Amino acid sequence: MASVIKVNLPQQSYDIAIAPGSLEQLGEFMTNLHLGKKVLLVSNPTVFQLYGETAIASLKAASFEVASHILSDGEHYKTLASIENLYNTALENRLERSATMVALGGGVIGDMTGFAAATWLRGINFIQVPTTLLAMVDAAIGGKTGVNHPQGKNLIGAFHQPRLVLIDPDVLKTLPIREFRAGMAEVIKYGVIWDAQLFAELEASQRLDEMGHIHSELIDTILTRSCQAKADVVSKDEKEAGLRAILNYGHTIGHAVESLTGYRQVLHGEAVAIGMVAAGQIAVELGMWTQQQTQRQDVLIEKAGLPTKLPAGLDIEAIIEALQIDKKVKAGKVRFVLPTQIGAVTVTDQVPADIIRQVLVRM
Amino acid sequence: MASVIKVNLPQQSYDIAIAPGSLEQLGEFMTNLHLGKKVLLVSNPTVFQLYGETAIASLKAASFEVASHILSDGEHYKTLASIENLYNTALENRLERSATMVALGGGVIGDMTGFAAATWLRGINFIQVPTTLLAMVDAAIGGKTGVNHPQGKNLIGAFHQPRLVLIDPDVLKTLPIREFRAGMAEVIKYGVIWDAQLFAELEASQRLDEMGHIHSELIDTILTRSCQAKADVVSKDEKEAGLRAILNYGHTIGHAVESLTGYRQVLHGEAVAIGMVAAGQIAVELGMWTQQQTQRQDVLIEKAGLPTKLPAGLDIEAIIEALQIDKKVKAGKVRFVLPTQIGAVTVTDQVPADIIRQVLVRM
Repeated sequence: MASVIKVNLPQQSYDIAIAPGSLEQLGEFMTNLHLGKKVLLVSNPTVFQLYGETAIASLKAASFEVASHILSDGEHYKTLASIENLYNTALENRLERSATMVALGGGVIGDMTGFAAATWLRGINFIQVPTTLLAMVDAAIGGKTGVNHPQGKNLIGAFHQPRLVLIDPDVLKTLPIREFRAGMAEVIKYGVIWDAQLFAELEASQRLDEMGHIHSELIDTILTRSCQAKADVVSKDEKEAGLRAILNYGHTIGHAVESLTGYRQVLHGEAVAIGMVAAGQIAVELGMWTQQQTQRQDVLIEKAGLPTKLPAGLDIEAIIEALQIDKKVKAGKVRFVLPTQIGAVTVTDQVPADIIRQVLVRM
Repeated sequence: MASVIKVNLPQQSYDIAIAPGSLEQLGEFMTNLHLGKKVLLVSNPTVFQLYGETAIASLKAASFEVASHILSDGEHYKTLASIENLYNTALENRLERSATMVALGGGVIGDMTGFAAATWLRGINFIQVPTTLLAMVDAAIGGKTGVNHPQGKNLIGAFHQPRLVLIDPDVLKTLPIREFRAGMAEVIKYGVIWDAQLFAELEASQRLDEMGHIHSELIDTILTRSCQAKADVVSKDEKEAGLRAILNYGHTIGHAVESLTGYRQVLHGEAVAIGMVAAGQIAVELGMWTQQQTQRQDVLIEKAGLPTKLPAGLDIEAIIEALQIDKKVKAGKVRFVLPTQIGAVTVTDQVPADIIRQVLVRM
């Protein structure tokens, strides 16, 4: 009972396959993609210990030659220096142009592996096997890859589409609760920006804060509807020329919060949750949606066990300054994605700094 | 009397404009490309001193905001560390997605600037203003960008097409003779692999070793026919899936020679000249073309003042080993481009190591 979602792109389309237990079939899923024999499996220590053996066994059973590379975990290892280590492993294993890098892990592993695959020999094959909820519904889909610059997240990167995204929901059972919740932030985001039906199903669930307390049908719905939303948007706008901007809902202030806290204190999803609360409030201030709508959103965020307040001690003016070096700045103007109803947003660079300040002060 | 050659690509086509004095019109040439206001001009100390002011004045006259970044000269600065410095300048100048990096210099500057443009904010605009013959006829066209890995040339890189290639033949007047000759190696290459007419015109010229001793009409022919050859091949095969491989004529052994001499002793064009002599001999050994044809090629190479022998002291077995880590290796087999007549080549991975060894020993 695998769901398959197609990401249609002009140059190269690919499947997102969602199926419990599918990690054991990784090699099989890859056999029809006309890949070379060599595979470099990239993971982090935790995920590799849990699932590395299963992945490697499956790849070998499908006659791939497998090497592996372990990257240190966490946003602050998401640097060019880590990529250089990965290049060295690629060289040691003589990875040729027909070779494939497989990312087994969360968003950080996917972004880094994707960037290395994009830039090794000017681009080799790349496969995403996301193991966090956040990576499954967001980071693994769409071809954005990158590393952080000391002064900004993902400032260095490339578009490089995977040949396949393989999602095995079973691996979520070992995901730490805090990580699961962080992933729920992006799920709630899809409800707000794109899919009112998903939003309603999230509202109908008594709990959203722990995998074990959510019906498996809802987990399935969450994965398929979120991936479908991401695939829809990416298919319409591969390189972020327009529509794709809506995926950055909650990310404008979210990125500033992450950056100012050194990418350690606050998880990406938590920062997005805070950013969505702020964006909702800004939209209310601008008369674009209602206090009642923003409340419905905030209730979901709280139900998922996510923060709705700025981390203590964060300087408001520092946030405003940090907004200026975000990738989404255009002609010096900060771009915000703001909701207009449940399931629809608009993009604007006409938010007065005073309103941003006012909303942040209240948080 | 500008010649304009179109490079037609599925996603984005661009012009190669060839016109004496055109550097003074750089800003004008850029005005119709819908670029943002910000431009980062990237150059090396020598070129910047000669032409930086002219380029900047022209950009400012066309209302661009210009910053500049000077990269150290030479292959062995073509590293990720140099790219990190360039990212820092991009950040300091708040280069947004609509911004443009302009490469003013030779192939090293073009490759590095292109790679930075490809990976800054996942890709910004990029313009090539080549100032060496080699960059004009080869490196600046086709979207290959990259830096060297300590163990191999251009192992790290991306495809990123320029929005414009602007060639001002007048700047060749200040090009050192040795660099001019190195560029002639690629010109001779186009004659051998693609354009028998160009080959004949080179044969008809009494000298090819100094700009001042070559008719300006032949310089014009060299630039336009070489750029046309490169544009033809690239248009048919943007990402090196097949045909584009023929451009690597002379490069298989050439890259090994460069790599083993630390990218300093031998210029790229000189290494290609040596590689073409070797490839010609291999083709003769395999019965693909005649001793008389390879001689005609070698005469041109010598007339251009280029080397036809391996650098003294280079270990033949080390060359054979170095071939194995070249980007062009496929399933462990070394790929050679070999001539079959003047103006046509074939690609093969069926060259016995013994024949390579035998030919190299004689050089």
